[in-house]
Amino acid sequence: MIERSSIEISLSDIAQKSGANAALVKYHFGNKDGLLLALLARDAATEMSNLEYLLAQPITATAKLKLHIAGIIRAYHRFPYMNRLIHYLLHESVAGSADEVSKFFVAPLLDFHRRLLAEGVSRGEFRATDPVLFYTSLIGACDHLFFGRHAMSRATGVGPVTDDVCRQYIKHMETLICGGILTQVEEAAAAG
Amino acid sequence: MIERSSIEISLSDIAQKSGANAALVKYHFGNKDGLLLALLARDAATEMSNLEYLLAQPITATAKLKLHIAGIIRAYHRFPYMNRLIHYLLHESVAGSADEVSKFFVAPLLDFHRRLLAEGVSRGEFRATDPVLFYTSLIGACDHLFFGRHAMSRATGVGPVTDDVCRQYIKHMETLICGGILTQVEEAAAAG
Repeated sequence: MIERSSIEISLSDIAQKSGANAALVKYHFGNKDGLLLALLARDAATEMSNLEYLLAQPITATAKLKLHIAGIIRAYHRFPYMNRLIHYLLHESVAGSADEVSKFFVAPLLDFHRRLLAEGVSRGEFRATDPVLFYTSLIGACDHLFFGRHAMSRATGVGPVTDDVCRQYIKHMETLICGGILTQVEEAAAAG
Repeated sequence: MIERSSIEISLSDIAQKSGANAALVKYHFGNKDGLLLALLARDAATEMSNLEYLLAQPITATAKLKLHIAGIIRAYHRFPYMNRLIHYLLHESVAGSADEVSKFFVAPLLDFHRRLLAEGVSRGEFRATDPVLFYTSLIGACDHLFFGRHAMSRATGVGPVTDDVCRQYIKHMETLICGGILTQVEEAAAAG
C-alpha cells in the first residue's frame, strides 16, 4: 500500500508480493477487510503501548501533550495507509468494521486523552477541557494534514506533505493547542 | 440525502422525489457526480459570500475568527450531506472532482484564512501563523465532529451530534483556537 500510495490492492496482490499462497491469505483473514483490520489493529496496538509509556514518564502534562501531538502526526506520516484505512473502514466497508475501529483506535485514544487532561487540570497546567471535544479537535486536525491533501494541493501555495511540512505542522499544532492564536496582549484583554 | 442521512441515492430517486423526469435530470447534470458537485457548489457559494460579508464587518479580527468557527460548524450541522459529499468527491469519485472541490471550496476558504490571519497579525491580535497549516487544523477539527462520529459513538461517553453538542463544540473550538489549553500561569512559564 505504501508502494502504490493506495489501499486499492487485492488479496492476490498481497499473496504474490509476500510469497504466500492466496488461498492461505484468504483462509487466515477471511477477506480483504479482515486483512486491513488486522493490519490497522497491529499498528494501533504499537501506538497505544507508546501512549501508556508516555503517560508514565516523570515530565509535565504539557510536555506529554506536545510529545503526543508529534507522535500522532509522525505515525500518520510513517504509515500513510493508516489514515486511508480508517476512512475506508469507517465509510465504505462491511458492517462491523466501525465497531472494530472504535475498539482498538478510538476508545484507547480517547481514554488516553481523558487521563492526560485530568492530570494536566489537577496539576494546574490545563484549563478544564471536555475530553470528547478535545479528542475530536486534535485527531481531526492531525488527520486533515493527510486526508484530502491532494485536493488542497491544487490550491495556490499548497505543496505535498514532506518531512519538513510534518515538522512545521507539529510545531504549529503544539503552539495552537497549547497557547492558541491570540497574542498575549489580546488574550489578557479577552480574559479581562 | 438529509432524509436518509446518506449520499447513497440514485438519479431516479432524485427525479421521483422532485417530480422531475429522470432523463431530464440526467441531461442537465450528466450523472450523479455532476449533480452532487452542483449541489455542493451551490451551498459552498452561499457560505463563501457570507465570508466576504464577515471580512468587511467593522469588528476585530478575533471576533471575525470566532464567528467564522461558529459558521463552519453550523454549516456542517445544517447540511450534514456537505461533509459526506466532500469526502466522497475527494476519495471515491471520478477524476476531476477533486479539482472542482478545490476550486469552489478549498481555494476560497484558504484565501479567506490568508486575509483574516494577515488582518489579525497586522492589528497585533494574532501571532504570526501559516495560513495553510491553520486551514488544515481548523477545517480538520470542524470536519471531524461530523465525519466518523458513528464510530466514535461506540466509545464510552460519546453521544450523537445534537444541537447542544454543536454549541459546546463551537465554544470549545473558540477557546482552543484563541487561547489554547494552557492556563495563563503555565503559558507565562512556557514563554519565559
